Amino acid sequence: MSLLKGRFITVEGTEGVGKSTNMAFVKQWLEAKGHDVIHTREPGGTPFAEEIRELLLSKRDETVNGQTELLLMFAARCQHVYQKIQPALAQGTWVLCDRFTDASYAYQGAGRGLGYEKLRELEQWSLQGFKPDLTLMLDLPIEVGLERARKRGPADRFEEEKIEFFNKVRQGYLDIAESESERMKVINAEGSIEDVQKQIEHTLGVFYQQVVSA
Amino acid sequence: MSLLKGRFITVEGTEGVGKSTNMAFVKQWLEAKGHDVIHTREPGGTPFAEEIRELLLSKRDETVNGQTELLLMFAARCQHVYQKIQPALAQGTWVLCDRFTDASYAYQGAGRGLGYEKLRELEQWSLQGFKPDLTLMLDLPIEVGLERARKRGPADRFEEEKIEFFNKVRQGYLDIAESESERMKVINAEGSIEDVQKQIEHTLGVFYQQVVSA
Repeated sequence: MSLLKGRFITVEGTEGVGKSTNMAFVKQWLEAKGHDVIHTREPGGTPFAEEIRELLLSKRDETVNGQTELLLMFAARCQHVYQKIQPALAQGTWVLCDRFTDASYAYQGAGRGLGYEKLRELEQWSLQGFKPDLTLMLDLPIEVGLERARKRGPADRFEEEKIEFFNKVRQGYLDIAESESERMKVINAEGSIEDVQKQIEHTLGVFYQQVVSA
Repeated sequence: MSLLKGRFITVEGTEGVGKSTNMAFVKQWLEAKGHDVIHTREPGGTPFAEEIRELLLSKRDETVNGQTELLLMFAARCQHVYQKIQPALAQGTWVLCDRFTDASYAYQGAGRGLGYEKLRELEQWSLQGFKPDLTLMLDLPIEVGLERARKRGPADRFEEEKIEFFNKVRQGYLDIAESESERMKVINAEGSIEDVQKQIEHTLGVFYQQVVSA
């Protein structure tokens, strides 16, 4: 049993897929197995990384260069990984994180059309191969997610543009899930909460069995 | 005469070498030739990049990861280059900048001992080969510079450590000047202000002649 070190689990998905609810479920499930679990998020996760998050999310008149944005994102990520995530894992704590590098590939890489190759270079420079042990990708048709998130009627033209962007993001996630199927598991988030959590429980159970028997 | 686009000139050096005074001199010299000149600085140079500068320079309890610091530095630099420096050069404005990428090599690379190779990768990722057309490296023995900057007596133990660090930084600059001798010119900043500016004027004159005859 190699449970001495913790495991790093991330939850990904577009708007309105139910990340918060389901992360709480994952946390409870792991705690029921007797693990210490911390719940964190990106960008952010340490006081300094949260300051970088504020810089990234605050609105401003100045156009933000795409590379500047990516460098800031990975600056926050390095701080989070080296000051918080890796030390916690080394102490045997499991780390559950709301979004991680996959979100950069999906949102900036696929959504905004920045090259994957450019992202891969920066990921390698920053993290030297550090990845989640398991990623749960909550998947939902974009229209359904936006409706759930906003409880609104049919999309206007501006919404249509958003839908096109988010469809690219969703496809970005699905591409990663296809090429890294061992690590990233797609959870169909369209059904009832019970149905979704049944799938999550099954996925966690299979993963946990592998960890325990490794 | 290819004076239609501006040229990018940076001034580098350790503490107390007289950057401010001499940058004003360079600016006047170029303006006397009839050029529009902007004077800017790193890290910073645009409102957003100045916000990143504040993040970098403000004191905090949290240990800042070395990679985080470099990523923030280059985030500010990308914003500065793509939003301000390159557009200005394209319009024919000459850009005079207080520190640039060489300072990352000297301070983080040589001073703190982060690898040059790691820096080169990030520089290439961020700037794709964009470099100053001319760099004036104001050079002074560290003790002289610190004394000038602080008007104090002999160094205590803490000062001694600082001197060791700044000696590495100075050597870092001198290493670049040796390997890129066409671009980076070492100015001996130990003499009188008249003596220093005579050297700067000569260096600028040679550079300008090359630009005019190119």
